[in-house]
Amino acid sequence: MSLFLSVVPVSRAVEVAKSLAVPLHAETVPLDEARERVLAADIISDIDIPGFTRSVMDGYAVLAADTAGAGDAAPAVLSLRGRVMMGSATEHEILPGECIYLPTGGILPAGADAVVMAENTEPFGDSILVKKPAADGENIIRYNEDFKKGETVLNKGRRLSAQDLGVLAAVGCDQVPVTKRPRIGIISTGNELVPVTQVPAAGQVRDVNSFVIAAFVRDHGCIPVRYGIVRDDRETFAATVQKAAGECDAVLISGGSSKDDRDMTAAVIAGMGEVFVHGVAIAPGKPTVIGRAGTVPAIGLPGHPAATFVVLLAIARHLLDGMTGNAAPDPVTIPATLAINVPSTKGREDFLRVTLKDGVATPLFGKSGLLNTLARSNGILRVPAESEGFEKGSRVEIIPW
Amino acid sequence: MSLFLSVVPVSRAVEVAKSLAVPLHAETVPLDEARERVLAADIISDIDIPGFTRSVMDGYAVLAADTAGAGDAAPAVLSLRGRVMMGSATEHEILPGECIYLPTGGILPAGADAVVMAENTEPFGDSILVKKPAADGENIIRYNEDFKKGETVLNKGRRLSAQDLGVLAAVGCDQVPVTKRPRIGIISTGNELVPVTQVPAAGQVRDVNSFVIAAFVRDHGCIPVRYGIVRDDRETFAATVQKAAGECDAVLISGGSSKDDRDMTAAVIAGMGEVFVHGVAIAPGKPTVIGRAGTVPAIGLPGHPAATFVVLLAIARHLLDGMTGNAAPDPVTIPATLAINVPSTKGREDFLRVTLKDGVATPLFGKSGLLNTLARSNGILRVPAESEGFEKGSRVEIIPW
Repeated sequence: MSLFLSVVPVSRAVEVAKSLAVPLHAETVPLDEARERVLAADIISDIDIPGFTRSVMDGYAVLAADTAGAGDAAPAVLSLRGRVMMGSATEHEILPGECIYLPTGGILPAGADAVVMAENTEPFGDSILVKKPAADGENIIRYNEDFKKGETVLNKGRRLSAQDLGVLAAVGCDQVPVTKRPRIGIISTGNELVPVTQVPAAGQVRDVNSFVIAAFVRDHGCIPVRYGIVRDDRETFAATVQKAAGECDAVLISGGSSKDDRDMTAAVIAGMGEVFVHGVAIAPGKPTVIGRAGTVPAIGLPGHPAATFVVLLAIARHLLDGMTGNAAPDPVTIPATLAINVPSTKGREDFLRVTLKDGVATPLFGKSGLLNTLARSNGILRVPAESEGFEKGSRVEIIPW
Repeated sequence: MSLFLSVVPVSRAVEVAKSLAVPLHAETVPLDEARERVLAADIISDIDIPGFTRSVMDGYAVLAADTAGAGDAAPAVLSLRGRVMMGSATEHEILPGECIYLPTGGILPAGADAVVMAENTEPFGDSILVKKPAADGENIIRYNEDFKKGETVLNKGRRLSAQDLGVLAAVGCDQVPVTKRPRIGIISTGNELVPVTQVPAAGQVRDVNSFVIAAFVRDHGCIPVRYGIVRDDRETFAATVQKAAGECDAVLISGGSSKDDRDMTAAVIAGMGEVFVHGVAIAPGKPTVIGRAGTVPAIGLPGHPAATFVVLLAIARHLLDGMTGNAAPDPVTIPATLAINVPSTKGREDFLRVTLKDGVATPLFGKSGLLNTLARSNGILRVPAESEGFEKGSRVEIIPW
C-alpha cells in the first residue's frame, strides 16, 4: 500500500476499478419497469414464435405453383374458398386452384405456401384473379422462424432497450431477472465549497461535482446517495466516508482540488481499508485515488469538473458497469476528421473535449476547471498514452455525449 | 378529411406530427431530479464564475516576468511571502522578486499574473527556486472566464445531461424550470393479442408493442399510461380511445395489423376529431394514421413490432419531442461502409435494421414481423425516398441504438 503519488497507466486504473466491482444479487422487476436495467440471467423463449405460420400481408393464401407466370394479361384464376378470421384457424385445406382470404397476422391455411397481396388481385365472381406470381414462402412468416422454444433470446449482462422489452414480452417474461441497482455514496470535500443555494463569497465556489456525479451514476443504472459537502476536517470526513461505506455499495468522493485534500482522501481510505491507485497517467484527472473503504470500493475524483467528468467516463464507469453487471460497457464512437493539430505527451492518456459537427472534430482547449467547455462540447477525443498526438486532418474516434 | 389510404411522404407525416405537438406548461423540479428533463427557459448565470482569479495547480503565485529564462541551471530565486489557504484571500500583494504558495483553487494574490507548478520548483531557505519560466496567465483561470453574470449558460429546449446539471449548479439554479412530462396513453388493439402472462393459443400472439412503445415514450421523457389490450370491437375501442384522450396529452395506438383493424383506428379517430394522415410512404410502417382524437394528438402505429419501432423513430418521436419542447431531436448518426447492395423503391423511405461493427454496416433483411432482427441489430439505415438504394461499399449514415 502506498500513499504516495506514483502514477499508473489508465489501463491499470481500469483493471483495478473492474477488480473491485462485485456484482450485486439479482432481483425481479415487472417487465414494464425493466427498461435500462441489466439482465441477471439468460432469457429463454417459453414458446415457438410464431406458434403458427402466418401472413404478413392482407391477401390470399395460395399454392405458389398456381400463380406461376400470372400477369395482368394472363391472371391465374383461383376459386375463393372462404376467409380466415384474425386469431382463429380455418379447417379448410387449400387444394390446387383454390385460395382463401386472410388478414395480416392470420393463420396460413394448411396446403398454402404463400400469400398474394390483395393489391395484386381482383375479385371475379366466386373467384379471384391473381395478377402477379408469388414465390414459395412469400409474405409469410413460418412457424418458429422468429424464436424457437428453449432458445436463448437475450443474454445475461444486457442492458435492456425498448426493443428488448418487446422480445421479453414475446417470450412471456413478465417478471424480469435483473441485477440490483447499486447504491453509490457521493461525498464532496473542500473548504471552498458552498451549496448551490448560496452565493459564493471570495474564494468560494458552488458544489458542482456532486450533481454531475449523481446524474452520471443514474445514467449508468445506479442509485446516487448524497452525503453533502464535508469541510476539510479529517475526523468529520472520515466519519462521513465510514457512514457512506456502511450504507452504500461504493463511494465516490469529489476531492477537494488541492494536494492537501487529495492526500486526505487517500489517507482516510487507507485508514479504513486500502489504497491501490494514487495518481493516474491521465489528463485531466491525474490525482485520482482508487481503493477500498472497509469492504466497499471507493474512488477519489479530482476537484475540477471537467477532470471529474473525464475520470468518471474513463475509469469510474468501469466500476459502475461491473457492479450492475453491464456486459457491453464500451461507448459507441464516431469517426471524425480532426480540425487542428493535437499535441500530446507520450506516456499519458489525454482526453480532449471536442465539438463534433458534419464529421469534423474541433478540440476545445479549455482548462479543466472550466465548465463552459464541458457544456459546449458534444464529445471527447482520447489520445492514447503511446501517442504523441494527432495531426490536423487525421481520422480519429470521438466518444459522443 | 379522408379515411382512405392515400400515402404521404415521411416529411409530410413529420410535419403533421410536429404541428400537432402542443408544448406543455412548465414546472419546477429540484436540480437533483432535472436529469433528462427539457429546459422550459433560458438559464442565466447569477454570478461571475469564477468570482476571483484562481489557480488550477498547486504551486506558487508569481509575476511571470520574474521567471523569464529560468531553468534547471539558472533558476529564478523568489522570496516566499506566505501561503494562501483554501477559500480565503491573502492581503499581501506580490511585488517583483516575491512568490506565495497557493493550492489548486486558491485565490491568486494581487500583483501575481501566473502560477508555477510546485513540481517545477525547489525550496531554498526562505526562498523558492523556480526552474521553468511561466507565461502570463499560465495555470490560472481569470475572473469570470468561465461564465459572466447575466450570461445565458444553457438554452430553453435543451435536454439536460449530467454535465449540464454541473452548469446549473454553478449558476445557482437549484430549482430548474422544465417542461412538464407529457402523459402518453398507449392502447393495443387486435383480437389476436393476449397478455404476456398468457401462453398464446393457435393464431394468437402476445402483446409486444405496448411494452416497446412505453419504453420508447420513457426514453423520450414522457410518461406512458397503459390502457391494455382492446379487442377489435369498435364500441369498446372507441370508448377506450375517448378515455385515454381525456386523461392523457396524446394517444398512441398499436393497431391491429389487419386492414380491418387499421380502418377501425382511422375511423374511430375521425369520429372523435380528424384524421390528417392515413398511409405514409415508409417501409416498414405504411399503414400509419395521424390525427386528433378530440383535442389530443393520436397516432395509429402498425401492428408489426419492427414497423412500430421504425414509425416511433421516424415519425412519433417528433410528436413526443415537440410536446417536451426538446429542441435537439435529431439523433446522432455514425458514418459506415455498406457491406452489401441495398435496393430500394423510389418514392418510399426505407428503414433497414443493420448491425454496425468496425465501421461496416450489414443490413438484416428480416421481415417486419420478426423481433429477432430488431434485437440483433444495433442501428438503422434510412434510404431516402428519392434514392433507388445504395451500392455495396457506399458511405452511409447509421442511426445507432
